[in-house]
Amino acid sequence: MQIEGADQAQQSDRGQFIRSLRSVRRFAPTPIPEDVLRQVLDVGRWTGSAKNTQPWQVVVVRDRDRLRQLAEYGAFASHLAGAAVALVLVMDDDNRRLDEGRLAQNFMLAAWAYGIGSCIATMQPETNVERARRLLGIPTERGVRTVLALGYPADPRALRLELSGVEPGRKPMAEFLHWETYSG
Amino acid sequence: MQIEGADQAQQSDRGQFIRSLRSVRRFAPTPIPEDVLRQVLDVGRWTGSAKNTQPWQVVVVRDRDRLRQLAEYGAFASHLAGAAVALVLVMDDDNRRLDEGRLAQNFMLAAWAYGIGSCIATMQPETNVERARRLLGIPTERGVRTVLALGYPADPRALRLELSGVEPGRKPMAEFLHWETYSG
Repeated sequence: MQIEGADQAQQSDRGQFIRSLRSVRRFAPTPIPEDVLRQVLDVGRWTGSAKNTQPWQVVVVRDRDRLRQLAEYGAFASHLAGAAVALVLVMDDDNRRLDEGRLAQNFMLAAWAYGIGSCIATMQPETNVERARRLLGIPTERGVRTVLALGYPADPRALRLELSGVEPGRKPMAEFLHWETYSG
Repeated sequence: MQIEGADQAQQSDRGQFIRSLRSVRRFAPTPIPEDVLRQVLDVGRWTGSAKNTQPWQVVVVRDRDRLRQLAEYGAFASHLAGAAVALVLVMDDDNRRLDEGRLAQNFMLAAWAYGIGSCIATMQPETNVERARRLLGIPTERGVRTVLALGYPADPRALRLELSGVEPGRKPMAEFLHWETYSG
């Protein structure tokens, strides 16, 4: 199985699959099977980073009380309470946000590949970051900003690859793109 | 075509596809067809961001002289000189690095879906960021840290989904993962 062996339809499917990712905030009570979770975690482990420093670790939280606690540590983090799993991204320090974003996106896409929805929750303000560190026993110097809520969508329509027109849109290509220079 | 309709083999393929992404720094002279480039750019446009702010624009550079110039604006940016295309990520300001990482990862995976390799180049130090802004006519307040080099790999073996064991590895799961708490 090689990427170069993929025909045009397969390539286009893969592109459309990546394009289809969107956030899911309401989850079904269905647990995520252990083997599926392991595969999602392994995709995360293989994420690329600056000079392959891999400046990260992950705490996997499934305990309902802990999930409810984490849900209180951010302004828009309430969806964590109903998640099947939370992935707490523990960065070596607070200056790894680009790599943190790469890791978050890879985890979300890996989950999406298995029909699992996800949504980023941001731990804030700093007092809540400190609470999250205490809850999970994470050393003070680590960056703990991003927690991913994972779970099967409460509404299975969320998994359609075709965009429905209901979800938040994006700015048009003309406002996103320039050719050769910023004025182009 | 629905994600929920995907069978186990398809799900596993998608997971393995995401897991297989790695950086490519040496490119074939083959140009990227316009329709393929447009599809990659559209995946980027649909990338999720904090509160759907989409704090980004992209400058697409194909002019060889400009590519050579950009290649001089970073310590490890030389691979830009041989790229078919450079995607310059222009962020609304310098505090959007998590979203910038999500955009970079999505672009790299979208390119990978079409058999196109990529590698991040970081514009640095600040004097070089300023040079990049001047070269492309980008306003001073914008963040211009990350440029993606895109191109078909000079070595087609780069596109194998199976890891060869030659590329840089990753730390083992035991050093990446904790269960429930940081000591778990």
